[in-house]
Amino acid sequence: MLKDLTKEELRQEALRLRAEYDKTRELGLKLDISRGKPSKEQLALSMDLLNVLDSSSDMISEDGFDTRNYGCLTGIAEGKRLMADLMDVRPDQVIVFDGSSLNIMYDTVQKCMAHGVMGHTPWQKLPEVKFLCPVPGYDRHFAVTEAFGVTMLNIPMKEDGPDMDLVEKYVSEDPAVKGIWCVPKYGNPAGTVYSDEVVRRFANLKPAAPDFRIFWDNAYNVHHLDFEKQRQILNILDEAEKAGNPDIVYVFGSFSKITFPGSSVSGLASSKANLEDIAGNMKYQTIGHNKIMQLMHARYFPDREAILAHMKKHAAIMKPKFDAVEEILSKELGGLGIADWSKPDGGYFISFNTMEGCAKTVVAMMKEAGVTMTGAGATYPYHKDPEDRNIRIAPSFATLEEVREAIRIFTVVVRLASVEKLLSE
Amino acid sequence: MLKDLTKEELRQEALRLRAEYDKTRELGLKLDISRGKPSKEQLALSMDLLNVLDSSSDMISEDGFDTRNYGCLTGIAEGKRLMADLMDVRPDQVIVFDGSSLNIMYDTVQKCMAHGVMGHTPWQKLPEVKFLCPVPGYDRHFAVTEAFGVTMLNIPMKEDGPDMDLVEKYVSEDPAVKGIWCVPKYGNPAGTVYSDEVVRRFANLKPAAPDFRIFWDNAYNVHHLDFEKQRQILNILDEAEKAGNPDIVYVFGSFSKITFPGSSVSGLASSKANLEDIAGNMKYQTIGHNKIMQLMHARYFPDREAILAHMKKHAAIMKPKFDAVEEILSKELGGLGIADWSKPDGGYFISFNTMEGCAKTVVAMMKEAGVTMTGAGATYPYHKDPEDRNIRIAPSFATLEEVREAIRIFTVVVRLASVEKLLSE
Repeated sequence: MLKDLTKEELRQEALRLRAEYDKTRELGLKLDISRGKPSKEQLALSMDLLNVLDSSSDMISEDGFDTRNYGCLTGIAEGKRLMADLMDVRPDQVIVFDGSSLNIMYDTVQKCMAHGVMGHTPWQKLPEVKFLCPVPGYDRHFAVTEAFGVTMLNIPMKEDGPDMDLVEKYVSEDPAVKGIWCVPKYGNPAGTVYSDEVVRRFANLKPAAPDFRIFWDNAYNVHHLDFEKQRQILNILDEAEKAGNPDIVYVFGSFSKITFPGSSVSGLASSKANLEDIAGNMKYQTIGHNKIMQLMHARYFPDREAILAHMKKHAAIMKPKFDAVEEILSKELGGLGIADWSKPDGGYFISFNTMEGCAKTVVAMMKEAGVTMTGAGATYPYHKDPEDRNIRIAPSFATLEEVREAIRIFTVVVRLASVEKLLSE
Repeated sequence: MLKDLTKEELRQEALRLRAEYDKTRELGLKLDISRGKPSKEQLALSMDLLNVLDSSSDMISEDGFDTRNYGCLTGIAEGKRLMADLMDVRPDQVIVFDGSSLNIMYDTVQKCMAHGVMGHTPWQKLPEVKFLCPVPGYDRHFAVTEAFGVTMLNIPMKEDGPDMDLVEKYVSEDPAVKGIWCVPKYGNPAGTVYSDEVVRRFANLKPAAPDFRIFWDNAYNVHHLDFEKQRQILNILDEAEKAGNPDIVYVFGSFSKITFPGSSVSGLASSKANLEDIAGNMKYQTIGHNKIMQLMHARYFPDREAILAHMKKHAAIMKPKFDAVEEILSKELGGLGIADWSKPDGGYFISFNTMEGCAKTVVAMMKEAGVTMTGAGATYPYHKDPEDRNIRIAPSFATLEEVREAIRIFTVVVRLASVEKLLSE
């Protein structure tokens, strides 16, 4: 344990680490482990998608729509089946959208704000709207609600999901609480998988606000790192229906991290009543989404097995990077008592916690050494990590060698920052 | 002139037309001239677009973006050039969006409502927001502003654009007037082309509201029916800049009626300051639009000439239908003094005016005879045509034979409704 060292030992260690850090800075590196972007090798896996359609293709959908023309607001039949296969729901529970689930989530919040949920008062007309934000969480979720002036309340994440005692208390007592951001499986950033109990407690919430909705961003449903250790979660739509709460949740999914990010197909799954409410507002915004992309994806992924076979190829590229991070972190930081980190079975991120008050320093020092990381604080609403501890590691985009190099430097920086922190106390 | 007939002559004419109408009803027709959808023959023109990209394609944009990955919020270089070629603007004046300009227009209004224009008060916080709506106009424009609770004020259309005296008066006197919907070229539904004077008066408006914006939907910029009679309009961005009003206008354009409606590429052109304002809000909604569609379209249409060559093929399919409508209307209704209609040089529609109080009846009778037309009133805000006269004819989707049949029936119905109207007076 680092804290058991004497001041003099710490000073020696600081000198040694500082020298190593300075040497690294002189290398003029340019590495980036900041965003959850697929690597070139992963993108190459989907190039055959571009062979699916050509000038001789039949462009009529299974339900008879000419995919080349206007219309079909909620998606063609095979587009709904495709999203249902991905999201573990039924095709009739789906509206198909364009290439980004972030866009659906923004638009859904926007419609709640401007038009209200199922005839309830539009949120923008209320004195205050609050969202629960499990932390650490996904920065772009928090940015959406911040953009609309929503008050965001931190909910601590536990091993198996958000602190449900706190969620239940807020949701049942405060009618201003209108929503919660969830990534239920391989969550961003800690890779947390919600337990059956957590999912059931979500499904059984008794909200004070009749227009409270769970924003269930199932972004990583099939993004296993190890197909031998596939984790499953309960189906929130089924559980909500059983609980007599069929309308409580909007589920989001996307092919962005399966085929081409931003240029794929995404979807929203929910109850019939919610889908009708959403489509009723959506019809002013669009005549229909990109049905060519729907057709292309649906023919490329004829069933769930085809999706999973494709995801195994992603895992083969991703897992060595996650293994490398774990190996280096364990070797260089294990047992020092200055950090802990997640060991996810899927998703795109590793959540790393420094000693209190060190995260910002570490990220800044990494930048100086030529390694871009997600900004410290980004995993919290308003970019405010109250303990300045959490750092998100995103190893997907860089090459395996770059990941190893970046994490090696990271361990030096974390140790240096920790030693200097201990010295300053 | 029908009105010169005696009551008895009118009665005879009514009997004869009613018999003809009843005979038509018995045919059990199923025709549709209601929406501005391209026909199958037009869609077939773009099938080669699907051959542009395949698994061997270089997917890197001219400015170095991997179009298969996240990023590039405002569009790849060739996507901007593509939209600039279409919209007669410069690439640096463009943000590229997904397949539908309706979606951009909705989102732009939404952002003005929720976030405000360039730091001004969000429109939703104001007691009232008004839009000027040149009539007859495009129903989906009016639906967007209606969805956001905007008060819509009718502005009569003249031969060369909206009544600019009225526009200037409203815009300069009332700070609640925040916008106006315009289709400046081959407008929906009358095919009106704004004169240079009208464009200059728009560019020189002196709005009472600093956040007033012209919503300039240049949907039909290259949609000429006869390339020998191409009409041109002044460049509103250039004129606005000359007038010292660089930020007054948002220009919209789309490839929907060039390649595949809803599955193409669209764009917004404006001043640098407006683009920054829009991108500043857009970054919460998306990481970037579909860059694969941008790349595909940009390589298929390397320059403006390629777009125009493609549009000539559309015109070859469209013009015979418009000619047929004009021929039949002239022959059957010309000189009767019961109707007038537009003779557009481009676009998708013909605007038809019945005698006062007959439009709803005509559309309802057409429906009974198996011909679907755009609902009467649709060309006015709130679906309220104060004189119940305007009907939009959309001859693009049906075959030439179907158009001839539908319009032949239409002339019978219009004459019958007119005769019965005269008899009832």
